Amino acid sequence: MNVVELIARKRDGGILATDEIAWLLQSYTSGAVPDYQMAAMAMAIFLNGLERSELVEWTRAMLHSGEVLDFSSVDAPKVDKHSTGGVGDKVSIPLAPMVAACGVAIPMMSGRGLGHTGGTLDKLESIPGFTTGLNAERFRSVLDTCGLVLAGQSETLVPADRKLYALRDATATVESIPLIASSIMSKKLAEDLDGLVLDVKVGGGAFMKSLARAKSLASTMVEIGKAYGVRTVALLTAMDSPLGKAIGNANEIIESIEVLSGGGPQDLIEVTLALGVEMLAVAGIESDPAKARALLEKARHNGSALEVFARVVKAQGGDASVVESPDRVLPKAPLRTVVKAEAGGFIQAMDALKVGVAAMRLGAGRERKEDTIDPAVGINLAAKPGDQIDQDQPVMELMYRHPARLEEALAVLEGAVRIGEEPPEKEQLIIERLD
Amino acid sequence: MNVVELIARKRDGGILATDEIAWLLQSYTSGAVPDYQMAAMAMAIFLNGLERSELVEWTRAMLHSGEVLDFSSVDAPKVDKHSTGGVGDKVSIPLAPMVAACGVAIPMMSGRGLGHTGGTLDKLESIPGFTTGLNAERFRSVLDTCGLVLAGQSETLVPADRKLYALRDATATVESIPLIASSIMSKKLAEDLDGLVLDVKVGGGAFMKSLARAKSLASTMVEIGKAYGVRTVALLTAMDSPLGKAIGNANEIIESIEVLSGGGPQDLIEVTLALGVEMLAVAGIESDPAKARALLEKARHNGSALEVFARVVKAQGGDASVVESPDRVLPKAPLRTVVKAEAGGFIQAMDALKVGVAAMRLGAGRERKEDTIDPAVGINLAAKPGDQIDQDQPVMELMYRHPARLEEALAVLEGAVRIGEEPPEKEQLIIERLD
Repeated sequence: MNVVELIARKRDGGILATDEIAWLLQSYTSGAVPDYQMAAMAMAIFLNGLERSELVEWTRAMLHSGEVLDFSSVDAPKVDKHSTGGVGDKVSIPLAPMVAACGVAIPMMSGRGLGHTGGTLDKLESIPGFTTGLNAERFRSVLDTCGLVLAGQSETLVPADRKLYALRDATATVESIPLIASSIMSKKLAEDLDGLVLDVKVGGGAFMKSLARAKSLASTMVEIGKAYGVRTVALLTAMDSPLGKAIGNANEIIESIEVLSGGGPQDLIEVTLALGVEMLAVAGIESDPAKARALLEKARHNGSALEVFARVVKAQGGDASVVESPDRVLPKAPLRTVVKAEAGGFIQAMDALKVGVAAMRLGAGRERKEDTIDPAVGINLAAKPGDQIDQDQPVMELMYRHPARLEEALAVLEGAVRIGEEPPEKEQLIIERLD
Repeated sequence: MNVVELIARKRDGGILATDEIAWLLQSYTSGAVPDYQMAAMAMAIFLNGLERSELVEWTRAMLHSGEVLDFSSVDAPKVDKHSTGGVGDKVSIPLAPMVAACGVAIPMMSGRGLGHTGGTLDKLESIPGFTTGLNAERFRSVLDTCGLVLAGQSETLVPADRKLYALRDATATVESIPLIASSIMSKKLAEDLDGLVLDVKVGGGAFMKSLARAKSLASTMVEIGKAYGVRTVALLTAMDSPLGKAIGNANEIIESIEVLSGGGPQDLIEVTLALGVEMLAVAGIESDPAKARALLEKARHNGSALEVFARVVKAQGGDASVVESPDRVLPKAPLRTVVKAEAGGFIQAMDALKVGVAAMRLGAGRERKEDTIDPAVGINLAAKPGDQIDQDQPVMELMYRHPARLEEALAVLEGAVRIGEEPPEKEQLIIERLD
């Protein structure tokens, strides 16, 4: 096959055949097709798209570029959840133990944070000793003993995606719906799942700012999942304000433990339960939403979900006493400052992007991939949109280590909180469901 | 500056600023911007184009990636001609000496053949001893003593183009009008010209198959030339049938010498004169087309043009006796075969692409850049479209070295010649003039 011919075809809006896509991605992974040819192809795909048939094959070829897991000997239904990322989005951390406590096996592979959004792995690693880099044997053993494993993506899984993602990042071809969808889905399908629930975030703090693009990404991923016989559901959820009250790493673990202990902020609980209901449905455990919700609520109120979480923390080398005394176990930032309301009234909006960037500037996130995370710093919100506050009442607390970083964060937060006289319209958290 | 941001802007149909284009091409030439980023940019330009302002700056940045010649001390007006390439297109070889004989200095830099089209350098090198690789000093000395030099492009001129062209060739981004136009014009503008005449070929045997694309390329190049204060004219000329009767290398030198000696096939003479008239006009020597034509005809009938050619051949190390006894001096293929007319009638059409590919298969052209040329092989037409012939009368003669290659060439020629009962409409050779 001739790669220039394939690039020319996609450039001209044509269709690539199954064997051509398989050959291309195999040759790219092996190095036979160089980066510059794949860069031209990626830009042609960015601008001309992939048809549904191409997309399924592209995902299959990515998936088969490396190892594919085999959990056929696991008795329980295997389900995972993926979020496209947001500010304060720690949902996976309380959600997975809740769903596992209801009898679902969750071989969860998560990512790291980049830019204004945090990553589940970074948050988990703020627990002393907790390791997310598990080999296949240990991954399987944690899954078998806990019904849940919370790990990073194995190096041997979907190597084409790692290579292609780095290339897309350097060639302005990241924000392509078919390339995003096939990247996410190839990694999830390599986990040998029975069901998958996708949380596609929409709004100012999400990668997808518009509902139309978010919906297009969601339906594309659902289509790919169905083509592989994996029960796949997507929820479009709002990401205009931060989710929950903690934005950072250690503080998001604290908030997750609150949820697992029956507490936590209302918006975080609502999104967590909505996704959990879908996970129990695709797992075949409970298709009635009200009953599924009751099962999940029971798990977080009777201690069973927290118990699963403690077992996983321990199995992955972490200090399991974090579930009882998070404040003692987790790292703390040496300095704190409070941002106060400039006027009294109702909080109309809290800009998720600004809050996310401010947390990153404090050291809670990565500007570039090679940056390191400071698990102790971050932002705790004292109030949320819809709350009524007085002038000079605290709106948020910034936990930091370096005063210069605080300056930067405060500059970013300029105008992030809008206060008005009337109560705002209630934000619709769950925007749409696609299956 | 951030290259990813520039790629993203072009991807989204935005405009690159002057300093951004200069920085990008300088960084690419130096290696600071890697091939894969330029590949993504090239595809974005291919699909989204360049605005006029960007195009002029892109050309300027290419031009200034290397040495720019300085012929300010040459008294005569300096003019060059460029053809986008066709089958049997040896026009530069008779044209340049004719125009030089009329008092124009011609610092001509030509290219090599690729695919079904031949290259002026390859044709000239079929003259024993003739060298086209001249250093700056020798280039200048040949120009000074002969008023004409026929060389290859210097390595120090427009290095960005060499690098970018190789990348475009490997990434299916060759056929982009702004990229073609800036590639051609940057090389021509580096020659420090007063005037430039472009021969943009249109038709089945040309790179531009459609009149619309050819016209767009021609007007783009004329615009760039004008922006640089170089008097630039483009002719769109037909390339549906081969030009002249010789397709190859040594045989095209023979035909060129015929034209320089007052003979030659009519279509070749017509295109040569039309371009010559424009060259004398942009040189400021003769703006009246009829008078310019008379000057050129005089030069090829009184021996002065042939004399210039002989001097250049000698100055560039070639056997100048080629002008008197080309048959003796030039290499000959050991084998010949004649293709005969399958039926009697008028030749309606002769497919330039098929004839060009057949000549390439015989060894007269390069399938890939690294192939070597056999100067002796090629095709001589015995008849041209419009000619009346009897059944079994010769249509063309194939000169070859390897019988296997002959087989291939004959297979390609299948259906290349169309014969009918009525005389065909006369082909319009000069389709349009743009200035």
